[in-house]
Amino acid sequence: SQMANSKFEYVKNFETQEKLLPNCWTVVRLDGRAFHRFSDEHRFAKPNDDRALMLMNHCAEALFKEFPGEIVFAIGMSDEYSFVLKRTSNLWSRRKTKIETCFASFFAASFVLHWSKFFGPETPLLYAPMFDCRATCYPSERNIRDYISWRQADCHINNLYNTCFWALIQQGGLSAAAAEEALRGTLSGAKNEMLFTRFGINYNNLSPMHRRGSIYIWRQVEMTETAKSGEPIKRVRKVPTLIHDDVISDVWWTQNHAILEE
Amino acid sequence: SQMANSKFEYVKNFETQEKLLPNCWTVVRLDGRAFHRFSDEHRFAKPNDDRALMLMNHCAEALFKEFPGEIVFAIGMSDEYSFVLKRTSNLWSRRKTKIETCFASFFAASFVLHWSKFFGPETPLLYAPMFDCRATCYPSERNIRDYISWRQADCHINNLYNTCFWALIQQGGLSAAAAEEALRGTLSGAKNEMLFTRFGINYNNLSPMHRRGSIYIWRQVEMTETAKSGEPIKRVRKVPTLIHDDVISDVWWTQNHAILEE
Amino acid sequence: SQMANSKFEYVKNFETQEKLLPNCWTVVRLDGRAFHRFSDEHRFAKPNDDRALMLMNHCAEALFKEFPGEIVFAIGMSDEYSFVLKRTSNLWSRRKTKIETCFASFFAASFVLHWSKFFGPETPLLYAPMFDCRATCYPSERNIRDYISWRQADCHINNLYNTCFWALIQQGGLSAAAAEEALRGTLSGAKNEMLFTRFGINYNNLSPMHRRGSIYIWRQVEMTETAKSGEPIKRVRKVPTLIHDDVISDVWWTQNHAILEE
Amino acid sequence: SQMANSKFEYVKNFETQEKLLPNCWTVVRLDGRAFHRFSDEHRFAKPNDDRALMLMNHCAEALFKEFPGEIVFAIGMSDEYSFVLKRTSNLWSRRKTKIETCFASFFAASFVLHWSKFFGPETPLLYAPMFDCRATCYPSERNIRDYISWRQADCHINNLYNTCFWALIQQGGLSAAAAEEALRGTLSGAKNEMLFTRFGINYNNLSPMHRRGSIYIWRQVEMTETAKSGEPIKRVRKVPTLIHDDVISDVWWTQNHAILEE
Repeated sequence: SQMANSKFEYVKNFETQEKLLPNCWTVVRLDGRAFHRFSDEHRFAKPNDDRALMLMNHCAEALFKEFPGEIVFAIGMSDEYSFVLKRTSNLWSRRKTKIETCFASFFAASFVLHWSKFFGPETPLLYAPMFDCRATCYPSERNIRDYISWRQADCHINNLYNTCFWALIQQGGLSAAAAEEALRGTLSGAKNEMLFTRFGINYNNLSPMHRRGSIYIWRQVEMTETAKSGEPIKRVRKVPTLIHDDVISDVWWTQNHAILEE
Repeated sequence: SQMANSKFEYVKNFETQEKLLPNCWTVVRLDGRAFHRFSDEHRFAKPNDDRALMLMNHCAEALFKEFPGEIVFAIGMSDEYSFVLKRTSNLWSRRKTKIETCFASFFAASFVLHWSKFFGPETPLLYAPMFDCRATCYPSERNIRDYISWRQADCHINNLYNTCFWALIQQGGLSAAAAEEALRGTLSGAKNEMLFTRFGINYNNLSPMHRRGSIYIWRQVEMTETAKSGEPIKRVRKVPTLIHDDVISDVWWTQNHAILEE
Repeated sequence: SQMANSKFEYVKNFETQEKLLPNCWTVVRLDGRAFHRFSDEHRFAKPNDDRALMLMNHCAEALFKEFPGEIVFAIGMSDEYSFVLKRTSNLWSRRKTKIETCFASFFAASFVLHWSKFFGPETPLLYAPMFDCRATCYPSERNIRDYISWRQADCHINNLYNTCFWALIQQGGLSAAAAEEALRGTLSGAKNEMLFTRFGINYNNLSPMHRRGSIYIWRQVEMTETAKSGEPIKRVRKVPTLIHDDVISDVWWTQNHAILEE
Repeated sequence: SQMANSKFEYVKNFETQEKLLPNCWTVVRLDGRAFHRFSDEHRFAKPNDDRALMLMNHCAEALFKEFPGEIVFAIGMSDEYSFVLKRTSNLWSRRKTKIETCFASFFAASFVLHWSKFFGPETPLLYAPMFDCRATCYPSERNIRDYISWRQADCHINNLYNTCFWALIQQGGLSAAAAEEALRGTLSGAKNEMLFTRFGINYNNLSPMHRRGSIYIWRQVEMTETAKSGEPIKRVRKVPTLIHDDVISDVWWTQNHAILEE
């Protein structure tokens, strides 16, 4: 039977293995699959459900902490999250599939594990969610910053659209089709105007989490811990910190450039 | 700002996309990461924990049902499970990463969702598990059958070893190191003999699930359903069926050849 | 300086290596780059230049002989040639790029080396040609036969078109644009008819090499060789044999099935 | 028959296509296959054959000129040549296989085409050479410079060894085995010393082409051309320029930094 095993073992040679190009930042992006239906079935608030966003953030933070020396930045919105691995990361020898599938499975498992903390007993999780995941390499600082800008700009565009769309329905009494029609081809100036004049909403006063997404970075924090002797001692620790800053701006990156230097 | 978005959108060109070779059977294999530690921390029974195995089977069945026209066979043991996609499958246009990450995330999410059904309130899940996952193509019937045989032969070899190892410890009072030493280099005949003469265990009478792993296939089952009129009607339905057969044998495949013909 | 070398050697880790899936037939297809211009500048006869086709065949035969245990079939037409590696080939451990670049460079080098044998002193080679090359795996007998049929069907379609096109120009006195216009949307029946009624050409009587392309297979040939003693001895040897058969037909493959069994 | 063609055309879906990561420098390295045997059969001078090196340079220059907007640097030695594509190159949409096979076939074809210019009628080319070729991405300036340094350091190490090895044989009368034995484990200091004291060779006075390899870069050159009017006019043109500089040094790159800025 050990002979039998060796006889079959040749099938391992059919496996392939791809590595991420060294010396590039790697973005690992997770995306909920069929979350439109998922959000309907779990009666998510529209245009944004803060319970869902905070659950996503909680899962992101868990993943962030799981690989403290590897992930240097994360940005999420709606049902997606992007994690940036530092340029020099050697996580699992940069094996692409290993990174993608471990991140996807850990995030999805965390999503289920922590669901009830955010949705409570009145909204049970009806079925297991799926997240697809892809790792992409970015060779230059310009490229990785542009990736982050792309996601934050996308967050803004989608949120402005959704805010208008749901105001037209919830406050304006329009059907979904009519709301879609009313917004077709409008520029962002017109959308801001519509929100203000028709619904009294000043877009810029809306929640930064909705407008800019959620960002995790490591921050040095001074903590008071208790030594073995029982004495309080001060320690500086790196903790995952949730922010909602404008990370498209050059100023932010000048102040936080250390993130890209790791 | 929509202009800003287009300006950044070029970063999408850095993404890669790999497709599985057409007309091959695809095996998608999931493996628990660091499950040695995981099984210790959740006090799994040794050498086999039936709660854990049944949870794995439950998750496999859920995935099986999620893609009824695509997955034709599954085999699992310990903390791993392999799913066979039919040769002609066009799931997600055969995008390799999409399949790997959706399967991994759904399986891990199911594992958490169903944990308490099998482990009860006395053994809470302590943290989110990770599963790595890889899709591999097999071009011929011989190759895909050899893959399945490889996993089943491996199950047998590991189970025989573990059964001896834990008998030496649990019944024989040996330390882990001494048990390992006692087994070093022994052939399977000697292991069977040891189990029988020293511990009164007839290996072939042990649970088929432990010796051969768990297998899912589709079986036609006649069901009595209720028509709209209230009349009972008989329907033939395809249902996921759990078996523990010897799937290395030619006889089994002669009888179940339709599995490879889909 | 040997230290200096080690310091730089890390750059080798940026190299990637892809292997062809085992147990598949591999087609390595070469295509002349910008051969439209090349054929004009070297004043190729139209619609077919036999010197060029025979040179292509000569290069194919050289490559065929260079890897006698690996290449089992080849088919070429115009400025392209496809080589089929046997299913079990382990040439260069199935390294995809190695196979593609060695085949491409050897074929191109042979093309230059043998040019004057076919074009003579009156048509010197004006510059070095380029050939792109790609290796593709085919998992089943059906697939590899369909690949071959695809190329032969393509040869026929192109040759029928080109024969009409150049007859309209050379015999009919039309301009290229007028010939193209006259042929737009015509089915093959109409093209055959036009050749026969307008130009007295029976398409089926044209050269098989032009209609079906050139095919190389290995054939056993009895040869009389001279032993060391000076005695003549008969030996059976495998030699590359050029044919122009219909290799779409099932009958041909029934008779030559051994090609796919190697 | 056009229907027949469509029926087979599905085989194109088995082809794969890989692209080079954007915004990286790409090195395309060519290596002669089995050139040890090739150099023996064509009676190359040892340790260096200037006819062969100049032929390699001539082919590299031809390839350099063929893609004037894409290749920015090349370095070669012995039977290998590396070409650096600029970071922003979009040659053939960065298709990896296309680039590798076109470069390999063009270089090999040039090698045959120009052979007799360098080897004359007394040394005919006996058979077609093969070159393997691989494209590799380098994301940073440090990485691409280190790649170049790696090749130049390798050139030096090999040349120093070969110079000693052949001096021991040609001047010292040793067998190949004895020469190899004499050199085993020696550091470069000892090799320099041996050359000087035993054979009167000052290594640093040897040909820069042998010690540092051959490098092509583009240089602006002022040329006097003839206008249509017959008048001589001065034009600045970019011409491929062969140098044998130390390209490991920082100074060289400070002076020639524009190469990496394209």
